[in-house]
Amino acid sequence: MGIPWKEGDFVETLYSLLDRHYEEMVEIRRYLHQHPELSFKEVETPKYIAAYHKKLGHAVKTNVGGRGVVAKLKGGKPGKTIALRADFDALPIQEERDVPYRSKVDGVMHACGHDAHTAQLLVLAKVLNAMKDEIEGTIVFIHQHAEEVPPGGAIAMIEDGCLDGVDAIFGTHLWSTDPYGLVSSKSGPIMAAADRFDITIQGKGGHGANPHVTKDAIIIASQLVMNLQQIVSRRVNPLDPAVVTVASFEAINGFNIIADKAKLTGTVRTFHEKTRSLIEKEIGKITEGTCIAADASFEYKFTRGYPTLVNHEKEAAFILETAKKVPGVTDVEIVEPHMGGEDFAYYVKHVPGAFFFVGAADPEWDIAYPHHHPKFSIDEKAMLIAAKTLGAAVLTYQ
Amino acid sequence: MGIPWKEGDFVETLYSLLDRHYEEMVEIRRYLHQHPELSFKEVETPKYIAAYHKKLGHAVKTNVGGRGVVAKLKGGKPGKTIALRADFDALPIQEERDVPYRSKVDGVMHACGHDAHTAQLLVLAKVLNAMKDEIEGTIVFIHQHAEEVPPGGAIAMIEDGCLDGVDAIFGTHLWSTDPYGLVSSKSGPIMAAADRFDITIQGKGGHGANPHVTKDAIIIASQLVMNLQQIVSRRVNPLDPAVVTVASFEAINGFNIIADKAKLTGTVRTFHEKTRSLIEKEIGKITEGTCIAADASFEYKFTRGYPTLVNHEKEAAFILETAKKVPGVTDVEIVEPHMGGEDFAYYVKHVPGAFFFVGAADPEWDIAYPHHHPKFSIDEKAMLIAAKTLGAAVLTYQ
Amino acid sequence: MGIPWKEGDFVETLYSLLDRHYEEMVEIRRYLHQHPELSFKEVETPKYIAAYHKKLGHAVKTNVGGRGVVAKLKGGKPGKTIALRADFDALPIQEERDVPYRSKVDGVMHACGHDAHTAQLLVLAKVLNAMKDEIEGTIVFIHQHAEEVPPGGAIAMIEDGCLDGVDAIFGTHLWSTDPYGLVSSKSGPIMAAADRFDITIQGKGGHGANPHVTKDAIIIASQLVMNLQQIVSRRVNPLDPAVVTVASFEAINGFNIIADKAKLTGTVRTFHEKTRSLIEKEIGKITEGTCIAADASFEYKFTRGYPTLVNHEKEAAFILETAKKVPGVTDVEIVEPHMGGEDFAYYVKHVPGAFFFVGAADPEWDIAYPHHHPKFSIDEKAMLIAAKTLGAAVLTYQ
Amino acid sequence: MGIPWKEGDFVETLYSLLDRHYEEMVEIRRYLHQHPELSFKEVETPKYIAAYHKKLGHAVKTNVGGRGVVAKLKGGKPGKTIALRADFDALPIQEERDVPYRSKVDGVMHACGHDAHTAQLLVLAKVLNAMKDEIEGTIVFIHQHAEEVPPGGAIAMIEDGCLDGVDAIFGTHLWSTDPYGLVSSKSGPIMAAADRFDITIQGKGGHGANPHVTKDAIIIASQLVMNLQQIVSRRVNPLDPAVVTVASFEAINGFNIIADKAKLTGTVRTFHEKTRSLIEKEIGKITEGTCIAADASFEYKFTRGYPTLVNHEKEAAFILETAKKVPGVTDVEIVEPHMGGEDFAYYVKHVPGAFFFVGAADPEWDIAYPHHHPKFSIDEKAMLIAAKTLGAAVLTYQ
Repeated sequence: MGIPWKEGDFVETLYSLLDRHYEEMVEIRRYLHQHPELSFKEVETPKYIAAYHKKLGHAVKTNVGGRGVVAKLKGGKPGKTIALRADFDALPIQEERDVPYRSKVDGVMHACGHDAHTAQLLVLAKVLNAMKDEIEGTIVFIHQHAEEVPPGGAIAMIEDGCLDGVDAIFGTHLWSTDPYGLVSSKSGPIMAAADRFDITIQGKGGHGANPHVTKDAIIIASQLVMNLQQIVSRRVNPLDPAVVTVASFEAINGFNIIADKAKLTGTVRTFHEKTRSLIEKEIGKITEGTCIAADASFEYKFTRGYPTLVNHEKEAAFILETAKKVPGVTDVEIVEPHMGGEDFAYYVKHVPGAFFFVGAADPEWDIAYPHHHPKFSIDEKAMLIAAKTLGAAVLTYQ
Repeated sequence: MGIPWKEGDFVETLYSLLDRHYEEMVEIRRYLHQHPELSFKEVETPKYIAAYHKKLGHAVKTNVGGRGVVAKLKGGKPGKTIALRADFDALPIQEERDVPYRSKVDGVMHACGHDAHTAQLLVLAKVLNAMKDEIEGTIVFIHQHAEEVPPGGAIAMIEDGCLDGVDAIFGTHLWSTDPYGLVSSKSGPIMAAADRFDITIQGKGGHGANPHVTKDAIIIASQLVMNLQQIVSRRVNPLDPAVVTVASFEAINGFNIIADKAKLTGTVRTFHEKTRSLIEKEIGKITEGTCIAADASFEYKFTRGYPTLVNHEKEAAFILETAKKVPGVTDVEIVEPHMGGEDFAYYVKHVPGAFFFVGAADPEWDIAYPHHHPKFSIDEKAMLIAAKTLGAAVLTYQ
Repeated sequence: MGIPWKEGDFVETLYSLLDRHYEEMVEIRRYLHQHPELSFKEVETPKYIAAYHKKLGHAVKTNVGGRGVVAKLKGGKPGKTIALRADFDALPIQEERDVPYRSKVDGVMHACGHDAHTAQLLVLAKVLNAMKDEIEGTIVFIHQHAEEVPPGGAIAMIEDGCLDGVDAIFGTHLWSTDPYGLVSSKSGPIMAAADRFDITIQGKGGHGANPHVTKDAIIIASQLVMNLQQIVSRRVNPLDPAVVTVASFEAINGFNIIADKAKLTGTVRTFHEKTRSLIEKEIGKITEGTCIAADASFEYKFTRGYPTLVNHEKEAAFILETAKKVPGVTDVEIVEPHMGGEDFAYYVKHVPGAFFFVGAADPEWDIAYPHHHPKFSIDEKAMLIAAKTLGAAVLTYQ
Repeated sequence: MGIPWKEGDFVETLYSLLDRHYEEMVEIRRYLHQHPELSFKEVETPKYIAAYHKKLGHAVKTNVGGRGVVAKLKGGKPGKTIALRADFDALPIQEERDVPYRSKVDGVMHACGHDAHTAQLLVLAKVLNAMKDEIEGTIVFIHQHAEEVPPGGAIAMIEDGCLDGVDAIFGTHLWSTDPYGLVSSKSGPIMAAADRFDITIQGKGGHGANPHVTKDAIIIASQLVMNLQQIVSRRVNPLDPAVVTVASFEAINGFNIIADKAKLTGTVRTFHEKTRSLIEKEIGKITEGTCIAADASFEYKFTRGYPTLVNHEKEAAFILETAKKVPGVTDVEIVEPHMGGEDFAYYVKHVPGAFFFVGAADPEWDIAYPHHHPKFSIDEKAMLIAAKTLGAAVLTYQ
């Protein structure tokens, strides 16, 4: 790379090539949307990605860190090695929108936009490939599996060498509740540590008519859900952002049975190690007390997930500057940190890099449904902004 | 019938014939235990029952009221027509005991003793058949499907004619938490009205890290579970027995998702119509208020199940007197009403009859697990007491 | 006594004398209503009662068992000694009705009708005194202090000899939610055991803006109130009546302070010792668990109050028969037991006796406010029925 | 003022004069500590303050904006007019420490350090007075009543002219949980908007034994306390600091009564108007829904208190610079905003100014009890740091 910004025609070429391939981008995205695969169970998606890169003549490694795909494009001139990362897994959500490219897999849905992340990176790869003689250095396309479920695909892909020789990395997330035209990022902590907890309440089941000879696991677990609200409302410093979400409550029985067991699963989001530890401890204490009050027993597991994603100062500033010049971008902002987790966090623990958000609110809906919602959707044109920003970055980073 | 009690040798003959066939009774019960079938899904069990009666030469009708089986034994002498009823459906419970005759069907279990009810009635039929020349009148064996799930099998079997010509009916339930040797019953209300409710909370799902843009259905439903406790603790007259059980809580999601929906299902037990209506209304009111507080919507359905089971005075007294003389019976008691429901209630709305309990606590366990518990078990010898009481009743009822 | 019922003119005389003194009865009741005194703090009321009896020439003992008053009327003929008991303490309730005879003591109110109990017994004493030459035996008027607050006045008055030589005892309660004209009682358990509990939650106070450095006692106590609902809804046999009421919640602070302490006080009502002990234990367990979950400490005290009031069979039947003939009585019923406690329970542990209820719903109100309500009121005419029933009983009991 | 910092001997003189008067400072503080007065009920404290200033010959105005005191010291040379503000009201808290200078007023305590604020400002006034010939400009001592209770004393004092002619203002708060030696402040929002809410739940009272004819206000209010936790845990953006505290729960009754009413009072802390309005609305919605579920009624009042305290950039930087040179100061930090409210907010809406914190953790205690705690205490030496910083500021501000 190292092409100075002022010699903008090179970047302009990239932009117009991307514009010309926009339809293919949409096509790929919709194809992937129809064929979503759950985290750590991706089979066809990595094959599809690998095939695409192979067709372009890129060096391709599959099964990187499990199910990841890494492709390399060597430019015609010497230069730095820059990685671009896109994730490709989907979620266990039943799609509720009736679009022509609706998910064909019952209960599985691309409800976080990873289909678009993949589509935009593939088409960007094709366009960069077309420009390769003029490119200085090497571009590494990291297609990562399993971003949604800790431990995530990033750690294993890194251990498997995907960052070897890489000088810097960039990644992006389309954002369904940000308006089209907005690009945002920040230096320092930008996404939260994302942990998981699992609690099993063991009561004593029985017939629904005889509560006094049972220990009703549903009541105990419901009480626990209510009691856990106090962690954020009372026990964490109000100035220190934190989220404790009980995501799943499972105690399914016939209508005349008293529940023997109940399972709660959830997530904790924090920015500081001290708060993370405090919440881990408080969940345990509240669970213990709640079970003592009910003479029940329990199992509690707290699994640390992705750490806080901390953007590097220089790269964060660079990406914001780069975005300002991208056609279609109307607003570039320093964003407040997000409570969501991202295993992109691991890459920037190893090499300099930055993660940024691209506004993608779908104009067809009055309400911008949030990520992970059964009605999640995006403005596909945002893929162009994302691809152009990544492409310009890779061509101009120094 | 009409054989006077003093001429006891006839009843004594019955007792000793039953004793001789005890092993077969156990064998049948264990076979059925290994092959449980859910309510309204019984296929092999009714076939098995019908085959058994056919082999004895009884007139057999199948598919009575759906999946029920009715067999008739005509005695050699004229007399009344007496019906004996046993239910044969199982429950959606995963058996947790490791016995040799453990359920072979994953997630389905005879956890309420209907396997034993069927075994004891079949073997009693064989023994009575052996004595048939001396029997006055007709004995109707009502093998009922679907006792566990309203509307139950009884209504349809009655509509399909199973009580036609019947002068009186008797039924029994082995009781895992009563000691072996105890037989109990009472005149009047003996089992509760058993209703069902279904509540679906519709919140607004989203990403686990962003509670403020969602309406967390798990919290709303948990709060509702807690709030419903007040119906029994505060809103029903403490002198009027009532149970409100939330039996099932279903809101299963990935660990980092906020629940869009939660489903609660449960049962209500009462003895008085006024209380039944009060509770139906209060559940609705509490659900409404809880959802208003959370800006969520809901669906609430209250389905009336079996009415209160009311024993006839004469037949209840008769069955208690009969039981006193049965070998193995050490205690005959007037029982407090049970909160459980029983669709035997419908039979005694049409003909005189009584329902009674036979103690069956399993001596192999320190704890007598209640009905519908994954570790439910019985003392199989109790089947003999049940069969003898039913047999003596049928031979001596006037 | 021993005057046979058929020689009714003696009883008729009593009735008409009481009718003639009805206005005095109302006057006394209203005077006492204006001057209510709290349990164990009665000073003027016992003086008033003693003066009234002294004026009649009765032998009077004051300070019996503390603040009780016992008066004796010796009849002109030999016979049994019968005691009649009325309680005279008031409640810490602010009266909310604006009647001319409204309580003159701020925050104190005769909200349970003890003013009327006293008035009817005093006037009955005057009438009986007028008939004394013809009366067989002795009548003991037991005016008891402190019925509302355990340990109550009865125990101490009995220890102080108020039942010495007594052959039988009768007592009554006007009942604001029963219609005028109804008298009811029953043999056996008629009122519940009434216990008290006190719980102090010790959290850690602080500034309202800094919850994370405090332990908010109000949240802990609120949670406890919710958790205690499960005792009745889930842990007590639904067939066994029980009440757990948190009556008082005290945690008063400035609006910007986090509560350091919270005090809960309440009552438990049961009919069986086993349930009483179970609830005592469960309150402790739930309090402990709730405090463990919040890292707080607590004090818990369970104070046994009055035992179950058990009417004697003969005397209960007698009082119901007697009431049937009283003018104004339109309905005599066998009542379901009340969850309320009564230290009349102690008297009938020592001598035969019965307690009964006299309907006193106030016709001036659409709603019959329950006892202990700030708007409690009675139909004063019910005092006449109560006095006539007690009077007839004392004249005819054998 | 306007004396350049380098000519430090003038400031040094101030420091040493203050050191010499430290014992008087302690004496005054302890005297005030023994005689605390509640907000808007201050009578003796303003008299004491006024007398002190009068003795120094300062122009004194009393009853400023109600109970405030304003004193003026005119320097010997021309210059700016700088105001220093100290608050002097106490809290309705029962002191729990047994110190020699313990509060002599039952249930009232200087648990927020306003006694020290007053003492340090008075002694500073005396010292500045001694130096008055050399002082450029005028110093205004604003002794404010009623900081603890909105609407607070500041508004009325400002309306009454206390800021007339003032060029800048400084104020400080001793902080019991910050270590001695630390001074902290920040530019922009430094303390939260502090609002108040009052909720009265109207149930239906009755006898503790008869819950089914009542509407138990304590249960409704307890449920409400629990439900309100969700505002912070679920409905406010986790990145936006907020506190909802229920500070007071009042439902005091005899142990056998069911509560007719319950009163909740509390505070809300926020930094953004949008969140403030959201919480105001959510409290209402949750209260409404909770009462609908219980068929109860309610009153809800939300009273806006102090707005966010926003330090001016220049003055905040100046005070931090000034503090760095004060003897005893070991650490000067940019602080995170506090959730506490301060009506100093109003002064800096009118004139430039800054508010800062002075660490005052009491070394005699292992635990540094927070403000408003019954065991609150301070290291009195912190008064010297506060007085020196304010004094140096007033002498060098330009």
